[in-house]
Amino acid sequence: MSVQPQVGTLNDAELWRELGQQLRVDSIRCAAVPKSGHPTSSMSAADLMAVLLAKYLRYDFDQPEDPRNDHLIFSKGHASPLLYSIYKAVGAVSDEELLTFRKFGARLEGHPTPKIPWVDVATGSLGQGLPIAVGVALAGKKLDRLPYNVWCLCGDSELAEGSMWEAFEHAAFAGLDNLIAILDINRLGQRGETMHGWDLASYTRRAEASGWAAIEIDGHDVGAIDRAYEEALSITGRPTVIVARTIKGKGVEAVENQPGQHGKALDDPEGSIAELGGERSIVVDVRKPEGDAQPHTFETSSLELPTYESGKDVATRKAYGDALLALGKGRGDVVALDGEVSNSTHADEFAKEIPERYFEMYIAEQQLVAAAVGLQVRGWTPFASTFAAFFSRAYDFVRMAAISRANIRLSGSHAGVSIGEDGPSQMALEDLAAFRAVHGSTVLYPCDANQTAKLVAAMADLDGISFIRTTRGATPVIYDAGEDFPVGGAKVVREGDDVTLVGAGITLHEALKAADALAQQGTSARVIDLYSLKPIDGDTLREAVEATRGRIVVVEDHWPEGGLGEAVLAALAGTELQFAHLAVREMPGSGTPAELLAAAGIDADAIAAAARKLVSAAAVAH
Amino acid sequence: MSVQPQVGTLNDAELWRELGQQLRVDSIRCAAVPKSGHPTSSMSAADLMAVLLAKYLRYDFDQPEDPRNDHLIFSKGHASPLLYSIYKAVGAVSDEELLTFRKFGARLEGHPTPKIPWVDVATGSLGQGLPIAVGVALAGKKLDRLPYNVWCLCGDSELAEGSMWEAFEHAAFAGLDNLIAILDINRLGQRGETMHGWDLASYTRRAEASGWAAIEIDGHDVGAIDRAYEEALSITGRPTVIVARTIKGKGVEAVENQPGQHGKALDDPEGSIAELGGERSIVVDVRKPEGDAQPHTFETSSLELPTYESGKDVATRKAYGDALLALGKGRGDVVALDGEVSNSTHADEFAKEIPERYFEMYIAEQQLVAAAVGLQVRGWTPFASTFAAFFSRAYDFVRMAAISRANIRLSGSHAGVSIGEDGPSQMALEDLAAFRAVHGSTVLYPCDANQTAKLVAAMADLDGISFIRTTRGATPVIYDAGEDFPVGGAKVVREGDDVTLVGAGITLHEALKAADALAQQGTSARVIDLYSLKPIDGDTLREAVEATRGRIVVVEDHWPEGGLGEAVLAALAGTELQFAHLAVREMPGSGTPAELLAAAGIDADAIAAAARKLVSAAAVAH
Repeated sequence: MSVQPQVGTLNDAELWRELGQQLRVDSIRCAAVPKSGHPTSSMSAADLMAVLLAKYLRYDFDQPEDPRNDHLIFSKGHASPLLYSIYKAVGAVSDEELLTFRKFGARLEGHPTPKIPWVDVATGSLGQGLPIAVGVALAGKKLDRLPYNVWCLCGDSELAEGSMWEAFEHAAFAGLDNLIAILDINRLGQRGETMHGWDLASYTRRAEASGWAAIEIDGHDVGAIDRAYEEALSITGRPTVIVARTIKGKGVEAVENQPGQHGKALDDPEGSIAELGGERSIVVDVRKPEGDAQPHTFETSSLELPTYESGKDVATRKAYGDALLALGKGRGDVVALDGEVSNSTHADEFAKEIPERYFEMYIAEQQLVAAAVGLQVRGWTPFASTFAAFFSRAYDFVRMAAISRANIRLSGSHAGVSIGEDGPSQMALEDLAAFRAVHGSTVLYPCDANQTAKLVAAMADLDGISFIRTTRGATPVIYDAGEDFPVGGAKVVREGDDVTLVGAGITLHEALKAADALAQQGTSARVIDLYSLKPIDGDTLREAVEATRGRIVVVEDHWPEGGLGEAVLAALAGTELQFAHLAVREMPGSGTPAELLAAAGIDADAIAAAARKLVSAAAVAH
Repeated sequence: MSVQPQVGTLNDAELWRELGQQLRVDSIRCAAVPKSGHPTSSMSAADLMAVLLAKYLRYDFDQPEDPRNDHLIFSKGHASPLLYSIYKAVGAVSDEELLTFRKFGARLEGHPTPKIPWVDVATGSLGQGLPIAVGVALAGKKLDRLPYNVWCLCGDSELAEGSMWEAFEHAAFAGLDNLIAILDINRLGQRGETMHGWDLASYTRRAEASGWAAIEIDGHDVGAIDRAYEEALSITGRPTVIVARTIKGKGVEAVENQPGQHGKALDDPEGSIAELGGERSIVVDVRKPEGDAQPHTFETSSLELPTYESGKDVATRKAYGDALLALGKGRGDVVALDGEVSNSTHADEFAKEIPERYFEMYIAEQQLVAAAVGLQVRGWTPFASTFAAFFSRAYDFVRMAAISRANIRLSGSHAGVSIGEDGPSQMALEDLAAFRAVHGSTVLYPCDANQTAKLVAAMADLDGISFIRTTRGATPVIYDAGEDFPVGGAKVVREGDDVTLVGAGITLHEALKAADALAQQGTSARVIDLYSLKPIDGDTLREAVEATRGRIVVVEDHWPEGGLGEAVLAALAGTELQFAHLAVREMPGSGTPAELLAAAGIDADAIAAAARKLVSAAAVAH
């Protein structure tokens, strides 16, 4: 059965209702092929999207890169059947392609990703779309200075995620009246009712308390939806949330408002489609953005990286701040964000001198990373910083950013036991493992200020997720300012042929001290600065172990798992080695950096002892 | 200068004020020794704590394990000088020990940890104390059924963390009138003013919108503090938040309400102490809990683990649910939590049959893990489950749980590309790396239902953080129900001497199929089931590579970093190997499990091909 309404004869409300039914029908159809997906979660929001599409969205589907386009983000990414049905309704995707949903190799995946040109970011881990939308809206208001709007469809289950309320807070604080959140309050989560069911006021109260305008509507009343969007666009100075009471599975009695119908194709797609009035083929001519405004660009001067004199003591976190400022001065696309610790990460240098491209994200690391992802959607080059330990708070956002093919740069300061007195809660000891295990990531760990500056500059042009780990304490500058540090490289800091010592960051300096001590005893240690953990310079490592008869000591201010030690073993996989791995193996406490490095067995003495053991064991063996 | 007020001659208010000054003085004194720490953040909350201590707290400092004790959690862990000054004021810590603050080896670390007997959990990563306090309060109300109160001191900066609002939501939803949050609104964060400064109403509105009772007070007016606590204790059916306007650095003009004074010892401790009226030595006799109530215990029957017939297809996630239910029936200390996906993780079996020990945490993974930590504070044995990918949302909570020396058990389902059509947002591909890099963790990855049941039972008695990764799809039962699977072990599933194949979970089955294919071609493959990634059975691995002439193929449904491959390399560090590592190296999309395993190059064909290559390379070499 197929109904083809005479679109020309319908009034607006009739058209919207028909379009809503079409989106439902198509959501059911595409889930019917793989027999999986989330049609009922799509059906609840169909009317909300129909009116948006037909009247309010400004988007050129032929030019998804047009900077004037609105943004439509499905925070409830599992409603992908609805999103893909929208793409069909606007003529961007054929009916044939719609039915490739969830097929191997298809771009219409189970949850949206930017393999689809009209998708800004991957969603599917709930609670991330709205914080990212905040980032896009920040870009619109503060950077691009273009009048596009950011529309974000949210589910009610995901409103239990604290990250959503970080976004509510931040959007209101930043006055983002270009952001409209649409809450699809269909009452039912995956396994039952949400905390608040259809108590719309529970959401409205909290949104208003955060400073948003809130409009409660029946999410299936197209007239009410129309009025809500119109009102939302008229509100200035603050974001608007439309709190819509909807019915999950709306329109098909067998699943409508029923528990146990989440994330399943409908049992009887044909009957359900008939119940909805059959297939339609309405094509919506979405209005294109108007005017010829172009994104704002920022004036810049020349890019002059900071340089440091050899032998001076400079913390790499300070060099990060200096280099970030230099990049910001030299490149108008570079923007900075920090999680309320900019006086520790040294992002404050950028904040003070380039406030118009600095975003204070307060102590909300999920929003910090999400904002960075949102800013890069619009082509900006974000650097986000906090203590390395606290990026663990945003690990799911980093994971998803990789699926978003996002280009973001993260700087984590205060790594390892070498921070000293503050104790383990502030010590990143798992960050290298966590960041290495992010798809396509780059993981850098400089030991000196000149190296840091060069690596920070390189990060600006890296794709994907890049992470730089900096050190709290001041360390000697060991490299000339002219030296280059390619990403994926390693430096032989000292030649030697008895044993190889591999360190990075703080432990590189300990390794150098150990090499001095060993030299005095006649042992010649090669010292390798493994400043690039991923990609890793396997050639330099292989040469070293060959030159030092397989003897290698790897030392890291990190737990033993997933950091330098395992990265080196992976790079040398299968090579016969006399391998010593010095890492933090017991829970540290407070103390001076020197005490804690010694207690963890990762200081110069421990390195020299491990090296001696390898050399003397070999001597005994021969 | 030292003032010794005649405590006996003071009225309550005078005593509280003196005690507040003492706490300030002692906070300054202990930070003065290491010349670091957070005295100003301590001074703002001193009066709030003085009144609590002197009149409301019920705690036997000689018996910190007394189940009737109240709980005092410093969510703002950096106010540790205040907490330690409290311990001195109650006579639990000597003045001498107070001055060991931040010293190497001292238990009075930069941020509190449970090395101190009166500290329930480590704090210092902001935004965690309140969610954990929710867990303790849940234990009090639903499990222990004891009238203790949970007092939680929170900073204002940390109210930007979404996790705090997960806690607000959940506490109100659960009606936790035994929870009192004290917000120390001192206006100033680390690097400047918070979003809301002294706008107390911005907090009050949001807390009330979440369903809390809220009381705004001047946090330095001891009478107002007294009345607020009294009122808070009288409120039933919902938690209370005391929103206190305070002054950072209160009492010392040089730092009072000044920016740039966060996290620093005072420049002039002696002058500052004089300004506060000098040292005091008030000792507060904190009231002990009354009555002789004992924690509730739950009736149990015998513990009968589920068993499965060899050859049947059973998902390990289903076996998790079955085993969890069996444990719950057999052990009254076992409790379960889930993040709104219990029908996928199969925790719903427990939820249905043992609802009084099941906690639905909705889609709030930080609160999920925090609640588990809170429940174990009171000696319960929590198992928390969600999709393995979504534990990345709570990674900072897991990291901190290790510092808390917490005993929690986490079950992550739907791991790897083998989940199929849902796509990468739902696929845990970094979880093994992340969990291995948690101090003292146990990481398990069973391949069959009988093995899963045994490992789940073992987890109940493990210390620290244990993680079990389960698989979405049904896989054949390959082990007899009687077989044992020690944590830290590995199974040689098939003997062989040409090549070793190492898999776990889904890839173990692929490895077995590969071994079959290889056998038909005359290649004898040893297959190892590496169900325990951490601790790892190095002996079994070493025997295998010796027996198979160093040829080893490791195959995992995980990114290449930090999972099976690197765990094996670390266990065999230095051994000469012909090593092939099959892992997920490109971003997956949707597809059937078989398509995705094949595309990632981790299916039986890929394993057999890799093994053949090793064997034939060796043949050529010889």
